Formats: sequence, C-alpha cells, structure tokens
Amino acid sequence: MSLSVEWIAVDWGTSSLRAWAIGADGQDLDSKTSDQGMAKLEPSDFEAALMSLIEPWLSHEKIDIIACGMVGARQGWIEAPYASTPCSPQANMITAPTKDPRLNVQIISGVSQAQPADVMRGEETQIAGFQKLNPNWDGVICLPGTHTKWVQMSAGEIVSFQTFMTGEIFDLMCSSSVLRYSVAGKGWDQDAFGTAVEDAISRPEAMAARLFSLRAESLLNDLPQATAKARLSGLLIGAELAAARPYWLGQSIAMIGPKAMGDGYAAALAAQHVPIIRTDTVHMTLAGLNAAYSQWKDPKWPAQ
Amino acid sequence: MSLSVEWIAVDWGTSSLRAWAIGADGQDLDSKTSDQGMAKLEPSDFEAALMSLIEPWLSHEKIDIIACGMVGARQGWIEAPYASTPCSPQANMITAPTKDPRLNVQIISGVSQAQPADVMRGEETQIAGFQKLNPNWDGVICLPGTHTKWVQMSAGEIVSFQTFMTGEIFDLMCSSSVLRYSVAGKGWDQDAFGTAVEDAISRPEAMAARLFSLRAESLLNDLPQATAKARLSGLLIGAELAAARPYWLGQSIAMIGPKAMGDGYAAALAAQHVPIIRTDTVHMTLAGLNAAYSQWKDPKWPAQ
Repeated sequence: MSLSVEWIAVDWGTSSLRAWAIGADGQDLDSKTSDQGMAKLEPSDFEAALMSLIEPWLSHEKIDIIACGMVGARQGWIEAPYASTPCSPQANMITAPTKDPRLNVQIISGVSQAQPADVMRGEETQIAGFQKLNPNWDGVICLPGTHTKWVQMSAGEIVSFQTFMTGEIFDLMCSSSVLRYSVAGKGWDQDAFGTAVEDAISRPEAMAARLFSLRAESLLNDLPQATAKARLSGLLIGAELAAARPYWLGQSIAMIGPKAMGDGYAAALAAQHVPIIRTDTVHMTLAGLNAAYSQWKDPKWPAQ
Repeated sequence: MSLSVEWIAVDWGTSSLRAWAIGADGQDLDSKTSDQGMAKLEPSDFEAALMSLIEPWLSHEKIDIIACGMVGARQGWIEAPYASTPCSPQANMITAPTKDPRLNVQIISGVSQAQPADVMRGEETQIAGFQKLNPNWDGVICLPGTHTKWVQMSAGEIVSFQTFMTGEIFDLMCSSSVLRYSVAGKGWDQDAFGTAVEDAISRPEAMAARLFSLRAESLLNDLPQATAKARLSGLLIGAELAAARPYWLGQSIAMIGPKAMGDGYAAALAAQHVPIIRTDTVHMTLAGLNAAYSQWKDPKWPAQ
C-alpha cells in the first residue's frame, strides 16, 4: 500500500491512542488505534508507541504530526503549558523531542482557567473543530464524557468553562460501589431516568439521600436493575445540571460527545426545554486537528 | 487456658468477623478477630469460619452464640428477615443451621423501612447497646461509617432512618478516581474541611461543580494534598448534612462511630451548633449483643 500522506493527525488520551493519515486534500486516508494511552507510558516511550502505528505511512521525507490530548500533560511526552482563558481553543503548540529526524511532532496545548480553577486537554481541539465547521458560532458547548465539560464560547474564544466528574462517578458507582449489584446488566428505563433527572434538578440538596435507596429498593422491592441504573444516571446528571444551570438556562447548546452518554444529556436537556445540536466526537476531533495543521502551516502563525 | 464462658458474642460484617467470650457476669473474657467477612464466604462456610475462632472457648456443653451484622444478609449464613420500622432495634432473631450440636447460633435481624426504602444490619445492635446504657433516651442517633445512618428514636423504637453513601464515595474518590493524585498522603487541613462543609451545606446544588476543581487546583496552584483531602471530605459530609437536615436541625445528636470518621461529622455538626454526645462503636456493639442475649434468655421473649 502506498499512500500519499501529507501529514498525520493524532488524538492521544489517557487510555488510548488514535492516528490518521491525512492526504493533500485534508481527507483521512487511513487510521489506526492502540491501547498505548498516556497512563501506560513514560515520556521516553511515546515516540516508539507512535512509530508502531504510523511507520507504514512514512517515507524518507520529514512529516508534520499534529497531536492533541493528554500526550501534552505533565506526565505525557512533553508538557504543553496550558493557554489561559479567555483564549482561542488552540492558542499554542509545542514541539515534542524525537530521535527520528523525519518526525516533526506538534502537541496542542490544553486550556486552563484560573478562577474557578479548571483544565482541559483534548476538548479544546474538538471545540476548534466545531468552530471550523460553524464559523462565528457563539454559545455554550457541552462535552459529555468521563469528565463532562461546559464551555462558554464568544467571538471565537473560550470565555469560561466548568468540569464535572459525573461520568467517572457513575462508572465507579456501577463497577466498585455497593450499588454494583443493583445496577448490573445492559437494560435501561428511560422513564426512571427522566424522573430522577427532574428530582435531582429540582431538589439537588436531596441527591445524597437518594443513592443508597437504589440498593435498599433492590433488596426490599426487587427494583429492576435497568431502573436502578437509569435512576442512578439520572440523579448524577440532574445534580450536574443543577450546578451547571448558568451554562444552559436560556441557552442554545451544541453537544460534542459519544452517542450513549450524549443520549442521557440530550434527554435531560430536552426535558428542560433546552434546544441542542448534537455532533460527533471523532468528526470534531479530526476537524480540530485539521484546523491546528492549517494554523501551523500559516506563515503568520503564531500571531503574537 | 480455661475460661468459664457463658455465651459468645459475634459481630460479623462484610469484611471482618469478631467474637467475644462472655462470662457469667456479662464481662468479655477474651476476643478474637479474623478477616473472614460475609463477602468472602458461602453459606456453608460460616460455621467453620466461626469455629476456627471460638473452638478454644467451647466445652462439651451447648453454648449460646448471639451474632449481628451481614451474617444475616441474603448472602450470609442464613437470611434473618428485616424487622420493619417502627420497631425496637432488636425485634427478631433467627436460628442458624449448624452441624456441631454444641452451637446454638442466633442471628439478630436487621431493620428495614418501606418508604423511603432503606435497610440496616448491625447498626440496630449498636443502637440497642446505646439504649441499654441510656434507657428512655429519645432523639437522633448518627452512625458515621462506609454507609452513614441517621436514625430517629422515640419510645424505644426506631421511627425512621436514612442511609448515606458518603464514606464509600470518599473512599472511592481517594483510591480510584482522578482525584487520587491530589488527595494522597495522611495530612489534614481542618480549616479547609470546615470551609468546604459550610460551602456544601449552604450551596448543596453547587457540590457537583466543586469536585474536579480539586484536581485542577492541584495542577495549576499546587493545592496541598492535605487541603484537597480535607476539602473533599468536607464537601461530601456537607452535602450529606444538607440532605439530612431534618435529622439534626434543632436536635441533640448521639453519635456512634469510629474515631477518625466521627471526628469529621462531630466538627461539621459543632459548626452548625448541634450538640452531640459521642460513644464508642465496639462498646455499643457489645452492649447491644448483651441486650439481645438478655432478651433471648428472657422466658417472656418474643413478646408476640
């Protein structure tokens, strides 16, 4: 196979690595994934982990590689210092050290916020992709995930954002807490989800009192697992929505996130009469890496 | 060693087993512990696990053994059906099947509540111990633990109760979440704890927004681990207090719980000007097992 690879796009998270071979017209020609996420690697391991994926795409020429995500964290390949809000989502890139002279690896900085303290790495690239596809769009972007983010955009800049651990807490509750017996299985009870969201939004102060009752109801009343799981998810998302209210109340929301998790947020927001546009995470990530590559090739960049 | 053992008291939880040899005057003569908690055992394993601890205390005579805790759960030695609120804390006992004819094992029932659904196993015995030592006491008992319980007592009965997963959530956050890096170590910042409790009580709806900021502040501002850990604990206990307000507002609280965890709840309640009496968990458990044994020996029991 001989591909005419112009540059390589890389999304490198905590637990996985994905690379795309991009052609001269900006289309992805091929892609590969591995489980060599940042958490598994020492700084000196990153080049080899990347080469094991992209070697077939290389020629003798130097090639540009644009990467986003936890690869730029302090424990990553090289720390790409955060840009501070307010800022454009892809304000900086940093060159990673390589032994192979053909590789020119640029890592996109994450974004930090001083007060309240918050950080993102990777989401800024999804946001940049959304911006590239929707120029001049102002509003709030919600990115559901392990750590869901709500991001206020204005005039092309990230103005403020807030991170919630909802996805991680849900996973820990389902895998490791006493509730794991009550929420096992793949079923889902959408009505129970909606009621729980409503309950947690309207009485967030009572949320802490609702969790153990899932266990008690399964012991006493044989609460179906599908109902318990949907209710747990609804309580956690509802508590998040109660705390994130300034981000969605009276707003139009763009959502970038995986299908299953996005479905929960979308239903919860729809019940609050919040209009949302949904987009695909991988599509936005690729568009954002493309935007960063264009910026990198622009002789006027960086602006300052 | 020859002990004159009148009966044997057993506290058998999810992760551990403790037995005491009790003399004719009700004093404990000896005690032994093992890690053979309910979670490690099949129903047919319980007798052997108990015998491995108590064999040295046995003679040729039949002996009464009074046990409380998860040993009476559905996955335990034999299910001791819950008594339902309102009820006295030790309303029922059930005989466990044994092969050794010397053993007469009585397992104390837990207590359930229909609405809101809730359950306890083991705490009812600590409560019975507190009652035995404080006859005619009415009020609220708080039992901090993995699953903290708030219990309204009146005229010797459990009127209502509510369970919070605060201890388990704190442990999961510290051991398994992204916050584990930020809250490691043994240090503690009491001022940060107090501020976080206050914050969560007064704005419980914002609690979900506070958690990830512990991680962000440790990345951006080198937030000390002792401060992050105390703040996490304060946020979770504060959220619980906000939800449990009807149990403590204007009440006098008796607390039964382990020292370290009880300290947090005691400080949080003191800051809310709630008077509390603190008692020792093991002392209450033994007193409660003693109360159950007296009841068992009473020819008028069970009353109905």
